[in-house]
Amino acid sequence: MGQASFQPPDPDYEQRVRASFDRQAAMRTIGASLGAIEPGRVVIELPHSPALTQQHGFLHAGMVATALDSACGYAAFTLMPHDAGILTIEYKINLLAPGKGQLFRMEATVVKPGRTITLVEGRAFAIDTGREKLIATMTATEMTVTGREDIKH
Amino acid sequence: MGQASFQPPDPDYEQRVRASFDRQAAMRTIGASLGAIEPGRVVIELPHSPALTQQHGFLHAGMVATALDSACGYAAFTLMPHDAGILTIEYKINLLAPGKGQLFRMEATVVKPGRTITLVEGRAFAIDTGREKLIATMTATEMTVTGREDIKH
Amino acid sequence: MGQASFQPPDPDYEQRVRASFDRQAAMRTIGASLGAIEPGRVVIELPHSPALTQQHGFLHAGMVATALDSACGYAAFTLMPHDAGILTIEYKINLLAPGKGQLFRMEATVVKPGRTITLVEGRAFAIDTGREKLIATMTATEMTVTGREDIKH
Amino acid sequence: MGQASFQPPDPDYEQRVRASFDRQAAMRTIGASLGAIEPGRVVIELPHSPALTQQHGFLHAGMVATALDSACGYAAFTLMPHDAGILTIEYKINLLAPGKGQLFRMEATVVKPGRTITLVEGRAFAIDTGREKLIATMTATEMTVTGREDIKH
Repeated sequence: MGQASFQPPDPDYEQRVRASFDRQAAMRTIGASLGAIEPGRVVIELPHSPALTQQHGFLHAGMVATALDSACGYAAFTLMPHDAGILTIEYKINLLAPGKGQLFRMEATVVKPGRTITLVEGRAFAIDTGREKLIATMTATEMTVTGREDIKH
Repeated sequence: MGQASFQPPDPDYEQRVRASFDRQAAMRTIGASLGAIEPGRVVIELPHSPALTQQHGFLHAGMVATALDSACGYAAFTLMPHDAGILTIEYKINLLAPGKGQLFRMEATVVKPGRTITLVEGRAFAIDTGREKLIATMTATEMTVTGREDIKH
Repeated sequence: MGQASFQPPDPDYEQRVRASFDRQAAMRTIGASLGAIEPGRVVIELPHSPALTQQHGFLHAGMVATALDSACGYAAFTLMPHDAGILTIEYKINLLAPGKGQLFRMEATVVKPGRTITLVEGRAFAIDTGREKLIATMTATEMTVTGREDIKH
Repeated sequence: MGQASFQPPDPDYEQRVRASFDRQAAMRTIGASLGAIEPGRVVIELPHSPALTQQHGFLHAGMVATALDSACGYAAFTLMPHDAGILTIEYKINLLAPGKGQLFRMEATVVKPGRTITLVEGRAFAIDTGREKLIATMTATEMTVTGREDIKH
């Protein structure tokens, strides 16, 4: 995936990501938490919970997508200016294996940042009795928005 | 979207969809419920809840995607044989407007059913003080799986 | 698909689409031509040619995608201001059936136009001995660009 | 991208890819040629040609997609059994920069092979006066088909 090192225009990018994440009630509801936050890269972790399962008792694909989509958005957000808001324009997810495991790790990496459009790739891994397995991949298009009070942080 | 009328191979398709949906804890957790169930078409409704919001107090895009993805899967499921299981291979979502409203309606329609692969289109609408607005579109690729006990219903 | 009637900001939208299309050598090379041009809707036609085939003698999926992608871009372009350029940010195509036929018709319709981002849906049909068949669907995200001399028309 | 080493079930995978590629008239028409062929990885090269340009004289995005899509299909094909055919179910492409250069290199790598479904990632690079630039990324879903004479090689 991305191997370039990115220069964040806002040195407080980590604090800005944490503050935004903490305002998302949905992340609390599903039990997601932030892991590593670097310029152009964000990790989100999600423990298994019976409340989030599909009909076979595995993590619902929607929950995988929700946490992975958030990781992609925040990876792009690390490279945006201090006063910018972010909109996810679209994403595509390929589901490779069931969400079977005790813990799930979502890794998102910026492929190409841009003034308006940033492309991010994400990968979701299930950790099942210590073994890690790739269960989904995502590409997400994120847009930098400035000057709109309703889309901020 | 699709306007063809489809012949479901299993006359009990509605009961099969309801039974599967009822086994999804994640749907209960987010408060989603089934609406219309027809051959090749399924509607899911989701009321606004503070527990499902993003940082601006609107419905989290992940919850829109979760409910819309489920609607797409069940629309395909209505046209599958009695003993078939279903796997979502991939989906793509375009987010058009924030999830601002009191109620959300997810409509999924099969574009082309197939023996192995079925293509479904979905649309998510927000109902805000009586006005309805298109907030997201999805295309989803669903696979019919037979003979596997771990992927059933 | 889209049923709204759109008001084009530039009354000369048809002439602008034709002038741009005529400058695309690739469209001449594959033999594509413009059909209907309406606000938010463009049709492109492509006759079968042995030069454009894949290994079974059918129209290569890449050629279906090329013509369908162009139709999507021009559908968005009809709703852009006179001095705007257009960039395709991404598209997704689902291939439903082989490109078997004598003529192919690509229809693109704007789902939601926006100041910056416009979402378009496309459908490709094969006409084979008078019978028409849906062979592919597309969703495309188009961006309006202004003030850049290198991206114009 | 993928770094696993794959075991091809058919030791003649390279010859099988070359034979299929040579039967694609569309590849000859656009001037594409095969580069490296390894288990789970295929490279296709495409020189710039005035016949393949869009309105600004750059390589048409449709041609980028056509060559990249072919590379993805053949990357999956290297890991399929001797008697299998291949169908591309869908792909998504993100366009990052104009097709400006003298030569274009399309690299495709299998992310996860499967008995029925194989996921592939592709990247397109433009080589412009010796400098290389990422201009597009793709994810493609490929299906292994057996027992059908009309979909073979």
